[in-house]
Amino acid sequence: MKVRINGRIKEMQSIWWDDGVCMIDQRGIPERVEIFRAEDLNALAFSVRDMVIRGAPAIGVAAAYGMALAWKNHEDMDKAARTIKGTRPTARDLYYAVELMLGAWREGRDVIAEAKRYADGIVEMCRKIGDHGVTLFRKGVRVLTHCNAGALATVDYGTALAPLRVAERRGLDPFVYVDETRPRLQGARLTAWELDNEGIAYRIICDNAAGYYMARGDVDIVIVGADRVASNGDIANKIGTYEKAVLAKENGIPFYVAAPVSTFDPGIMSGREIPIEERDENEVLMIDGRYISPKGSHAFNPAFDITPAKYITGYITEYGVFKREMIPEMIERWKTGGSGGPRDF
Amino acid sequence: MKVRINGRIKEMQSIWWDDGVCMIDQRGIPERVEIFRAEDLNALAFSVRDMVIRGAPAIGVAAAYGMALAWKNHEDMDKAARTIKGTRPTARDLYYAVELMLGAWREGRDVIAEAKRYADGIVEMCRKIGDHGVTLFRKGVRVLTHCNAGALATVDYGTALAPLRVAERRGLDPFVYVDETRPRLQGARLTAWELDNEGIAYRIICDNAAGYYMARGDVDIVIVGADRVASNGDIANKIGTYEKAVLAKENGIPFYVAAPVSTFDPGIMSGREIPIEERDENEVLMIDGRYISPKGSHAFNPAFDITPAKYITGYITEYGVFKREMIPEMIERWKTGGSGGPRDF
Repeated sequence: MKVRINGRIKEMQSIWWDDGVCMIDQRGIPERVEIFRAEDLNALAFSVRDMVIRGAPAIGVAAAYGMALAWKNHEDMDKAARTIKGTRPTARDLYYAVELMLGAWREGRDVIAEAKRYADGIVEMCRKIGDHGVTLFRKGVRVLTHCNAGALATVDYGTALAPLRVAERRGLDPFVYVDETRPRLQGARLTAWELDNEGIAYRIICDNAAGYYMARGDVDIVIVGADRVASNGDIANKIGTYEKAVLAKENGIPFYVAAPVSTFDPGIMSGREIPIEERDENEVLMIDGRYISPKGSHAFNPAFDITPAKYITGYITEYGVFKREMIPEMIERWKTGGSGGPRDF
Repeated sequence: MKVRINGRIKEMQSIWWDDGVCMIDQRGIPERVEIFRAEDLNALAFSVRDMVIRGAPAIGVAAAYGMALAWKNHEDMDKAARTIKGTRPTARDLYYAVELMLGAWREGRDVIAEAKRYADGIVEMCRKIGDHGVTLFRKGVRVLTHCNAGALATVDYGTALAPLRVAERRGLDPFVYVDETRPRLQGARLTAWELDNEGIAYRIICDNAAGYYMARGDVDIVIVGADRVASNGDIANKIGTYEKAVLAKENGIPFYVAAPVSTFDPGIMSGREIPIEERDENEVLMIDGRYISPKGSHAFNPAFDITPAKYITGYITEYGVFKREMIPEMIERWKTGGSGGPRDF
């Protein structure tokens, strides 16, 4: 992704291996670009829990690199796996990456090399998601997105934002309505920052205003990412996604989920089985360390919601754009490996 | 309404006449309770434009008192009317109150006395809205509300919050999901503060989480206020109201609008005719004077949206709870004055 540092544009990824794990500290974006370096498993677990890095595919890569760190430091690999899995509950990729690295370790392979390969695979998937997703756009398309499913969330390119990067490069002049995405404002902070760096036209809107623009006919398509996709096509994604999906359906606007197959969970039958993380109420009650609500008041703060498959027009994956009826076939294809199976990621 | 000042509960109204116009400065709530005093029309116009006072019925009262100020100061009354009407475009009550005071002035009546009578009428209407609205509740009812349609927005009692005050007094133990209501956070700041002072149980949620709790079956009823109600029952209300209405319908949850008849506009046929105020983009881009988005980014900031009547289960007014089919009859009753006509407010 393009990152503007001191007025200059630089090509960067959101997380990489450099004899340890380096990542853009997303807590500082857009104010400052700082690199967070994890030399051990504890630091890595902190980075996921405290959302130094977030986004399902990116924390999958962080998990893989966490296992690589444990391996490098000769730690107990099973314990490392439990530590990493205990950081955040909702994203599928985290569990998937840990299991993949455990498997590699048990087979005696170089876990660092495997983790790097996993990260490269994610980048390649996102690139393909961009190529497939762009086929849904006409020139001047107006896209609404929620939260950040960009390069920051995925190592590079992004899931929901990948087709926008391709569209911009191809001269399609896309325009993006960016939901600010309370409580953590990943839309206003991260998505706006990515689009700004890429030179893609956008406006930030309050989450409350998305329906207004949909009802006015100003939104052509909604694209979001996912933290987990159940076998029946239900998804878990950032809180508020469900609202946008219902509104899109009500207004006849196509609603797409962009996600690599590592986010699809064949072990989960429906959205009801996906655990929803409840985060600290202060994420709602405070902004920038100051209370916005009466002292002593309390908040509920679910970090994700479930969007039933009936609201989802299709899934943009590295294999193409699918309807939900094709999810089992897609998972099968991925398992048996049309291009070499999971290890080929 | 109950207001806690230095640990003591005091009975107050949001706006009153004291040889000038006094109002609780809502920009300071919940951090501090300060009184803003307007001695002339300019100060009064500022208070409406800058949202020292907001909420359709309350700015109607501010408008009436503004006309009283102009009359007291021997200003040009027609010019005063234009000044006040130019402050904010969406709320019906503002225009209605100005016209009422102009009429009183033309008939040679005491405009200060008329304005006070108008304010007392609003209080009485809200009290009745509370009595009618509470009939929709069972014990332990779980209510979702958006923005602030409380005593701050209406002199006293509130519209959407009036039934909750009555319910609490009657021992029905209501629970309120308070949408924080970005961008200006009237839910987190004002509604939470009012409920806190009244001892009504509540939790603040991000606007994004309302659909999540509706889909879980945790919300029994949604009640909001309105800034203007068209003849066909469409309403303009705080941005995000439309989203909640669609979600309520999708989840089979009754959605009620609480508003006095002064908010119903017989001159407007449908929501499409209601002008929507676009406010400063910095309300979205900044919180507490600090940017939450990249420098140089832009936002759209519509302050209201239109909720079509088909999503609205009923209207809670001072005359009772109505279906939209009864709006023309209700307006007729109000015009001809079952209880004395408009001047009886």
